[in-house]
Amino acid sequence: MSGDKGPVTSDRSAGEPVLDRAFRLLGAFSVADDSLSLTSLSTRSGLPKSTALRMATRLVGLGALERTGDGRYVIGLRLYELASLAPSHGLRGVALPYLEDLHHATGQHVLLAVRDGHEAVLVERLSAHRAGRVLYRVGGRMPLHATGVGLALLAHAPDAVQREVLDGDLTLRPENLARSPREVRRLLAGVRTEGVAVISRARPEPMTSVAAPVFGPGRAVVAALSVVVPAGSADASAVRPAVIAVSRAVSRQVGHREGGAGRGRGLAAGG
Amino acid sequence: MSGDKGPVTSDRSAGEPVLDRAFRLLGAFSVADDSLSLTSLSTRSGLPKSTALRMATRLVGLGALERTGDGRYVIGLRLYELASLAPSHGLRGVALPYLEDLHHATGQHVLLAVRDGHEAVLVERLSAHRAGRVLYRVGGRMPLHATGVGLALLAHAPDAVQREVLDGDLTLRPENLARSPREVRRLLAGVRTEGVAVISRARPEPMTSVAAPVFGPGRAVVAALSVVVPAGSADASAVRPAVIAVSRAVSRQVGHREGGAGRGRGLAAGG
Repeated sequence: MSGDKGPVTSDRSAGEPVLDRAFRLLGAFSVADDSLSLTSLSTRSGLPKSTALRMATRLVGLGALERTGDGRYVIGLRLYELASLAPSHGLRGVALPYLEDLHHATGQHVLLAVRDGHEAVLVERLSAHRAGRVLYRVGGRMPLHATGVGLALLAHAPDAVQREVLDGDLTLRPENLARSPREVRRLLAGVRTEGVAVISRARPEPMTSVAAPVFGPGRAVVAALSVVVPAGSADASAVRPAVIAVSRAVSRQVGHREGGAGRGRGLAAGG
Repeated sequence: MSGDKGPVTSDRSAGEPVLDRAFRLLGAFSVADDSLSLTSLSTRSGLPKSTALRMATRLVGLGALERTGDGRYVIGLRLYELASLAPSHGLRGVALPYLEDLHHATGQHVLLAVRDGHEAVLVERLSAHRAGRVLYRVGGRMPLHATGVGLALLAHAPDAVQREVLDGDLTLRPENLARSPREVRRLLAGVRTEGVAVISRARPEPMTSVAAPVFGPGRAVVAALSVVVPAGSADASAVRPAVIAVSRAVSRQVGHREGGAGRGRGLAAGG
């Protein structure tokens, strides 16, 4: 993204490569706005309406966008199909039966996340019909310092990543609670010595997350999983052994899968 | 795709718009090859190696591709994130707890699919650790005439779509069994009168699929779900009421979600 802060109606994209403009257009969609009119597409992407139309029409032709009955645009199934080939989706396929076991055994939210730079991306979430509200959705991004899975991922991330996150903004949102680097360091050390991260949040409902890392071959962390329970309930300590046992089961499964193939993250997709 | 059958090392993309070339490059990935070297990317996409490198580098910059430790390319998390905003993913979020109930109650494979033109796309699959092998994976495409969910989707598709499918190739693969248009028409009528499609396949293992449509507001079919059981077991008739009950529960939930918002397919994403 450029640093240009001009009005959204001007062409922020002038001179930008076509691919960048296409991804700027796709980036106009959000959870709250997963269906957009041409006008909203143009405004949100900062592309002139004629450019937005030309590009959207091409993306519809390629299946990356679809038009609904009322002429709005939505993300297309072709992107869904391509995304299913991402290694994180392969990992999800391997982990899913184990996540279901954990969900079944605890009756609580179960999350699976991977690290992408300085953030975690939620790859799967199993929730009971009437489980408490959680902040994050599948495909959404979560701060590493503020979530159980984030801390489990960060604890075993490269030193440089840990340093950069600790030097960055450690505020919890929406609580607006500043967390000190020392506190985060203590939590990370806890993950390394005890194998789990246990952290509580006040918003949107008081919840405690119990998270553990998933290791690939060679002790690299490839993901983290967690169970999220109402804060203050006895369940938080009760789910701890289950979280550890299941993260170990998934780690073993991931290690088996990669044995000897010499590939960086090449997990087979869901079968 | 162009009809040009020239050797893959020539530049099949000459004169093609940048976006088309980018999607051609992304289309090089498959379930069997979800991590590719630059050479394989170039060969499979039919793009010259220099073009493939330039384009792959740009796609890495945008997060649509990622490079693994050993220099191969994989589909990136940014596509995963965008795909999670597709309406089919919102539908999946709404349906997932109900699919879990069905999986829990039956102990068998549970599938959720949507129609994309003349094919079905698998949106979710819940499988037991040791359930029988099934042909299809999440994000993968399935023929409408050959699968339970496909028939459930086709039975309520627009007349033109039904006609085109019935006029097309009705062979079952990998069985290589020709199915007659009359037989498919009988199966479709069964879906409409009884609310379920029940079909058996011999490959890869003898299985019976019991599928039912999911209706959105206004009686449009938005998806189909199925339970896949070993063929010949008593389970096929036993799961029928469960499949019907759960498809009705999901339909109701989808209808509620869309009430009065005036959006074509605007299902809220997973929460």
